[in-house]
Amino acid sequence: MAVVVMKFGGTSVATVDRIRNVARHVKREVDAGNRVAVVVSAMSGVTNQLVGYVREASVLHDAREYDAVVATGEQVTAGLLAIVLQSIGVPARSWQGWQIPIKTSAAHGSARILDVLGGEIRKRLDQGEVAVITGFQGIEPHGNRVATLGRGGSDTSAVAMAVALDAEVCDIYTDVDGVYTTDPRIVPKAKRLPKVSYEEMLEMASLGSKVLQTRSVELAMVHKVRTRVLSSFVAPEAMQPVRAGVLEDIGTIVCDEDEIVEQQVVSGIAYAKDEAKVTILKVEDKPGIAARIFGPLADASINVDMIVQNITPDGKHTDMTFTVQASELPRTLEVLKSAKQDIGYFDVKSSADVVKISVIGIGMRSHAGVAAMMFKSLSEKGINILAISTSEIKISVLIDAAYAELAVRSLHTLYGLDAA
Amino acid sequence: MAVVVMKFGGTSVATVDRIRNVARHVKREVDAGNRVAVVVSAMSGVTNQLVGYVREASVLHDAREYDAVVATGEQVTAGLLAIVLQSIGVPARSWQGWQIPIKTSAAHGSARILDVLGGEIRKRLDQGEVAVITGFQGIEPHGNRVATLGRGGSDTSAVAMAVALDAEVCDIYTDVDGVYTTDPRIVPKAKRLPKVSYEEMLEMASLGSKVLQTRSVELAMVHKVRTRVLSSFVAPEAMQPVRAGVLEDIGTIVCDEDEIVEQQVVSGIAYAKDEAKVTILKVEDKPGIAARIFGPLADASINVDMIVQNITPDGKHTDMTFTVQASELPRTLEVLKSAKQDIGYFDVKSSADVVKISVIGIGMRSHAGVAAMMFKSLSEKGINILAISTSEIKISVLIDAAYAELAVRSLHTLYGLDAA
Repeated sequence: MAVVVMKFGGTSVATVDRIRNVARHVKREVDAGNRVAVVVSAMSGVTNQLVGYVREASVLHDAREYDAVVATGEQVTAGLLAIVLQSIGVPARSWQGWQIPIKTSAAHGSARILDVLGGEIRKRLDQGEVAVITGFQGIEPHGNRVATLGRGGSDTSAVAMAVALDAEVCDIYTDVDGVYTTDPRIVPKAKRLPKVSYEEMLEMASLGSKVLQTRSVELAMVHKVRTRVLSSFVAPEAMQPVRAGVLEDIGTIVCDEDEIVEQQVVSGIAYAKDEAKVTILKVEDKPGIAARIFGPLADASINVDMIVQNITPDGKHTDMTFTVQASELPRTLEVLKSAKQDIGYFDVKSSADVVKISVIGIGMRSHAGVAAMMFKSLSEKGINILAISTSEIKISVLIDAAYAELAVRSLHTLYGLDAA
Repeated sequence: MAVVVMKFGGTSVATVDRIRNVARHVKREVDAGNRVAVVVSAMSGVTNQLVGYVREASVLHDAREYDAVVATGEQVTAGLLAIVLQSIGVPARSWQGWQIPIKTSAAHGSARILDVLGGEIRKRLDQGEVAVITGFQGIEPHGNRVATLGRGGSDTSAVAMAVALDAEVCDIYTDVDGVYTTDPRIVPKAKRLPKVSYEEMLEMASLGSKVLQTRSVELAMVHKVRTRVLSSFVAPEAMQPVRAGVLEDIGTIVCDEDEIVEQQVVSGIAYAKDEAKVTILKVEDKPGIAARIFGPLADASINVDMIVQNITPDGKHTDMTFTVQASELPRTLEVLKSAKQDIGYFDVKSSADVVKISVIGIGMRSHAGVAAMMFKSLSEKGINILAISTSEIKISVLIDAAYAELAVRSLHTLYGLDAA
């Protein structure tokens, strides 16, 4: 019998009725003889309400107290699901992060999981009890205080539990039925990917796909946890339970690239709208100038993504263009303003009307010309590329936001991803 | 410098703005050099919402899971108050029951506090940090699970913390400014009692006064904790801070009777509307009949209060009248129905249109005739007494609900309680 970790997000547990639906998914696995640990998020809207209270209490606040408040959302869901499971005859108990314990770092609000002591839970799973575990949180053991993992952290909790329990699979139930080649709202011909490699999923997650949280994919990759993305809104009884060694072709399995037999060159097209472009005009072109610009930004914990440098016609100056998260733009401009004396520049221009389009695929490693095809295709559509960044398995370009949908659709067709 | 425990109920922390007001009360005490532990309830309405979720999940539910869900309300308030205190320059941290720990019995949903390990908190109070403690909950150490004390349990948490910290006073802040001779909504001439003895407060609490929870008064009485009832809606800066050995004449101090110099014969008139009367007609009048009636009720955990037995004219039968909580009436009637064969009776009649009026006073111990005055006065007003019960310091009568206000007002005047 397999150990199965099932994770349900906020929309899947938004009401008590939806929690009943979740319980039926769990019962299906239990009835098939599986040992089940469930990780739950807060009912949708609850975390936002709690964060709202904290901000109303004080804009600047103790992250430990923020955690104490915000972690309660998942605690409510876990208790309710345990009750519903018991009511349909499935033995269950809820576990809060500190009870297991899930030990975390002291970085309250964005803590990292350091260790999961899964022994007691494993024992109870073997006795047929379902463990319902609060996502998004653990305990910082030194201070004996609740610590949260940051927004979306429940995915990471689920993968960490799968590692601790040596689970057959970590099933992430969401409101979509898998990972698609791109956003189906933009490209109706987008296809579900039956399998996707950890590396690709990682790029997709960090490039704008909201399906899985980046850190959960990293953790799954390191520990080789097979992670599956599924919809909780499919009728629970219409799905097959997990069997050891066999995963049905539903949802998307995130797995090792070796498991993926027919590798596409490009697996997906991602886009991120929350980018902002900053251009510093007429900076003196001399050694050390980049450090003088990006040093203060790093000190302010502002993440710089793409960077492009142009020489101005006079040959002595340079224009420096880079991107940051749109939400960081006001802080970025402030930092640059206060460092103007030290950097020495003529002016700063910025725009949030940009979008980053990325083409992702493990197959790029062994196929040349993927980037050239992309640039040619965009150019033919009259789309101007503002910046480029690449990795071994992805190419990202920054373009004017007005062209976002056109670019995504063109590239989806170009790389043969359209459904027949 | 005194150790002060301050407890704030749900209406006092109903919004973040009210929590700011609470923080000003706390700051007043801190600024005066006092060491302060604060016990908080859930924001008003929150506990009801959580209980509603649990009931929606399943009418029959695991009390341990109920506790895990319902205890989150206080956890939110504690974190928020700690944040607000910090924001006005008062060092503070929140403590959940399991972190202290407050050890409780395993009776989830109505657990009793067994022990409070206040050492770490006491150390931090001495360092000038305010402890913000979740009311209503602790940890059942054997199972490592959160246990709640039952509705109104935060008063008990506060008194238990006062015991553990050897506090000068346990100040219970509510939405009324003290304990009154009776409900001022019924008798506008009702007076605030500057002091009331533990015994009297205990009778008042169990006879319908909502000001303090019964168990908190018992605990305060056993450990001689001076407990004060105050309004949180008075401007915080208009009140005097606690000084060792001196308590201002505001609110009501619940204390040992020795401290009360001018003892009244009667201190207050209480009334309870949540009573129901049950009459079992024509029961055979023979030994053991009471056991046959009240045994099954006790087995069903139904609390019987007043009992009256009349002999019917034939001399062989008896009518048995007793009262139960109105909410228990349907269950009571069911139990009697299924025991009809065994008891042997003609019929059962019941009514919830009754009210229990109680006259309470330590002074009754040394004054005869208090009851006689009461019966005569009610009779003169044409009020029929349906049942009577007495203790050393109280007399209760059951009357038709229609006469409730008339009876309370008459007795208030009769015993000289009207304000000048």
